[in-house]
Formats: sequence, C-alpha cells, structure tokens
Amino acid sequence: MTTVLISGLGLIGSSLARIMKQSVVQPTILGDDPNDDTSQFLLGQGIIDERVKLLNAASRADIIVLAGPVSVIIKQLTQLATADLKPDVLVTDVGSTKMQVMAASKPLQQRQIAFMGGHPMAGSQQTGARAGREDLFDNATYFIVDGSQTPAQTAQFKACLAPAGLRWVTVPAVAHDGLVSEISHVPHVLAANLVNTADHQLKHDAVGLSAAAGGFKSTTRIAGADPTMWTAIMLSNSEAISSQLTTYVEQLKQIQAAIDTHDSAKIYQFFAHAKAVRERLDQEEKKQ
Amino acid sequence: MTTVLISGLGLIGSSLARIMKQSVVQPTILGDDPNDDTSQFLLGQGIIDERVKLLNAASRADIIVLAGPVSVIIKQLTQLATADLKPDVLVTDVGSTKMQVMAASKPLQQRQIAFMGGHPMAGSQQTGARAGREDLFDNATYFIVDGSQTPAQTAQFKACLAPAGLRWVTVPAVAHDGLVSEISHVPHVLAANLVNTADHQLKHDAVGLSAAAGGFKSTTRIAGADPTMWTAIMLSNSEAISSQLTTYVEQLKQIQAAIDTHDSAKIYQFFAHAKAVRERLDQEEKKQ
Repeated sequence: MTTVLISGLGLIGSSLARIMKQSVVQPTILGDDPNDDTSQFLLGQGIIDERVKLLNAASRADIIVLAGPVSVIIKQLTQLATADLKPDVLVTDVGSTKMQVMAASKPLQQRQIAFMGGHPMAGSQQTGARAGREDLFDNATYFIVDGSQTPAQTAQFKACLAPAGLRWVTVPAVAHDGLVSEISHVPHVLAANLVNTADHQLKHDAVGLSAAAGGFKSTTRIAGADPTMWTAIMLSNSEAISSQLTTYVEQLKQIQAAIDTHDSAKIYQFFAHAKAVRERLDQEEKKQ
Repeated sequence: MTTVLISGLGLIGSSLARIMKQSVVQPTILGDDPNDDTSQFLLGQGIIDERVKLLNAASRADIIVLAGPVSVIIKQLTQLATADLKPDVLVTDVGSTKMQVMAASKPLQQRQIAFMGGHPMAGSQQTGARAGREDLFDNATYFIVDGSQTPAQTAQFKACLAPAGLRWVTVPAVAHDGLVSEISHVPHVLAANLVNTADHQLKHDAVGLSAAAGGFKSTTRIAGADPTMWTAIMLSNSEAISSQLTTYVEQLKQIQAAIDTHDSAKIYQFFAHAKAVRERLDQEEKKQ
C-alpha cells in the first residue's frame, strides 16, 4: 500500500490527486491545504482520503509531493530536512522553476532522503481545487530534474500518474529554467504587457478594448492568471526571463525597423517563418 | 430587388455573402474572385448567384463590396472611378485599414458616387471561402467610416447583414487605424516575434517548443495567420503600428527593470492590473 502526501491542493495538486486515484497503484492520499473549503470539497469527492498537516503526517508517507508556490516549497524543504520521515520516502515538487528548488533540497538530500525535482507543463488561467481535472495533464510534458531519487522511486511515482499519459523528460535544472522561461514565463509577461499597454492607450476610447476580436482575446488569455503566483515565478527565475526579454526586444526592434522602412520582403519573411513554426507546433500536438 | 456585387470571396467576402443570403433583403449576389475552385464551390452552395468580373458587372449592382486585401481595394477604387455605375450605387469595402482606403475613394466620391468605409472585426487564422461561416461575425463590431453615403444606403447595407447581430460603430479613419493597430496589428507582430524568438533560442533543444503548454499555444495562435495579408497590413498602417510598438517596448522595459531588481510590489501590480483588464474584457463579451 502506497501512501502519498500532497501539500498544496490547488489546480495542480488536486489534479495530481485525481489522476493518482485512477491509477492501478491506488494510493492512500493525505492532503494538506490551509483552505477549509477546498479540503472539505476534496474529501467529499473522495479525491483525498484524509486531511493532514504536512509536518504531522510526513512520517506516514511513501511519496511527498510539494505542490504549493515555489516560495512555499523552499520553506517546506527546509522544514522536512529536520522532520521525522520514512527512510525510503521520495520527496518531490511541482514548482515552476527548478534551480532554487534543487538548491533548497540540499540539506534534505544530505540526510540521505531522496529528492526529485518535478514540473508538469500544464495549467490554466483558472486556479484552485475546484478547477482541477484528471485530464489537466493529458499528453503533457512532465519535467524531471534528477536529485537523489532511485530508479525504483521514479518508477513508482510515474506509475501513480500513469493514467495521464505524460511525456516524461529529464533535464538539468538550468536548462529547465531557461526553457520554461521561453515557453511560459516570457509569454506571460508579454501578454500582460500587451493588455496593460492597450488599456492605457484605449482608456478614453468609447469603443476601446470591447471591439477586440478573437485574436486579441486568445493572445492575452494568459494575462488573466493569478498575480501572486506569477510574481513569485518572476522572482524565482528573473535572470532567464530578463535575458530573454532583452533578446525579444532586440528582435522586435528589427521588425519595427522593417515596418518603418516598408521592407516588405523582410516583413513577409518574418510572418512566414512564424507561421511555419506555429504550424509545426500544431502538427506535433496532433502526433501525440 | 437588391443586387450586391462582392469582389474577393475569401474568408470575409464569402461570410458576408452567407449572411446576406439569410437576410430578409434576399439580395441577388454577384461574386468576383480569380479563384475558379472558390467560385464554383460558392455557386454550388447557392451562396453566390452568378460569377462575374467586377468591372463588367459593376453597372448592375446596387451595392458593391470590395473584400480583397487593402492593396487590391485601392486599385479597384481607382478603376471604379471611371466605370459605368448606377447613380445611386453604394460602394463599400472591408479593408483592415481605413486612411489609405478613404484617400483612394476620393475620385469616386468626386463623381458623386457614394462610398462608405467598412471593417468587420472578426477573422480567423484560417483563410479562404471554404472557411467562411455565416456566424463569423456574430455580435462582432463592424466599423463604419463615413464617406459620402446617404442614411438610406447605410440602412440598406445594415439590413443585408442584419442576421449577424453586428454592433455598428462609426469612427473617423485615423481613430480606426490607431484602434485596430492596438487590438489587432500589434498583437500579431508580438505573437509572431515570440514564436520566432522562441524557435531561434530553442532550435538546438531536444525538448524545445514541443513542451509548450496551452498558454504558449493560445498566445501565439494568431502567428499562424497568412503572411501575405499581414505584410500588406503592416505596410498600410505602419505609422500607428510602429508608434505603438515603441510604447510597448518602453512599458516592457519598465517591467523588466522591476524583475531585475526583484521589485515584487511593482511586479504584482503589473500582473494584477492585467488580470483586471482581461476579466473586464471577458465580462463585456458575456454581456453582449
């Protein structure tokens, strides 16, 4: 019998619990979340079996999943480093950035406790346990950053999440943080900046943003995400994000110059290349 | 009996034809398009009644809708200025920018032919007559730029498109071009630039773009749009686009500085404001 303790029962944590309950492993799930409503809801649905506090229940777990924001994960790793734990427990996390988390897991690992960094690449502008879905990660990439876990522990964790059909990808922490900055963190900054700039410019326009067609809406959908979470992400991955924003602006200035000088060949090439890359992305999705 | 001639039977033109066929006006629709396949398809579906050439059939029309790219519309306005036309014909267009179009309509208007600028705010990354839909514009904004049309002509045009439930908004050409730059043209440049920058940086990464989750995909959906059309739009609205890109970059540098200095209050404020604006946008959509 496997016991999984999930701390943080928001969108990600509660979705992981839902998936694990569908797996052949059939783990007992202990859930830790400060929110009473969330906890009662998940207990009522049978998605968690028992509501616990992380430090009180940690000694009962075979797998501990830290599913709060990165700042909370870091605090919890420090607490777990001196907590009573099963000797063969696997501690893992789902934080959006990995360099800070891996550094914070060092004291735990020095105690010979297995730690594995993790990050499922999915999400929604929605948050909270009620928005969790057992299909949230279907066919998504789940990044693993190797810590000190054994192959058997990795296999058991993957077995718990087998129903989601995840694509497991092992990467070093620094590569992970650069990659997610490019495909998630920077896009969030750009979308929020577009919404803010447009709002500022159109504020006194009676038609304004309400005329925006589907293109604007889809481009800025992610700007509706939780500001607390995204502030934490900016702080925990600031170097990669800032460096990529610099590159983005350099490229943007090149296309702006082409627009200024009516360089139609260069403008066409810019849009044609983007279309080709974008279509490749859709094709890869279909292949999965 | 009203006869409408639509020149350019792509996504927009063919959708307008579909809507008009649902209206109580029940116009006869003459369709002009160089593409044989498109024309046969629309004839077969009863969406157009007859395939014609614009200049040969212009004298039979009560309403002429120019639904090609802006560069083609400008050429056609010059041709129509010397063509045989009914004295009370209404000429209108659906071009994405209006200042150049209004200027090009001057010779026609000087002949006392009524011209009205128009621009339905909808679209899709799809193109072509087969992608046309009678619900493409449902509840969308249709901009009108007053030229020399009479109120009766405007009313008749609106009656033809009544089934779409459009929100008709009259604006000056310069305000229109600034607005669509902000809510459509600039977002396209930003999305294409994001795709190109990410592709360049991730090209040698085995995981690369394929790990991109929903956020990246929705943010860059419009980067899959037709490069020929978007090059033409950039050329026809370059001043507004370039000026807004400058503002965008200035704002982006401010948030980048906040990320660099870990100014969490400023970062939070940035995301919180974007979330508020974005939610207002969704609420306005629901109200409609």
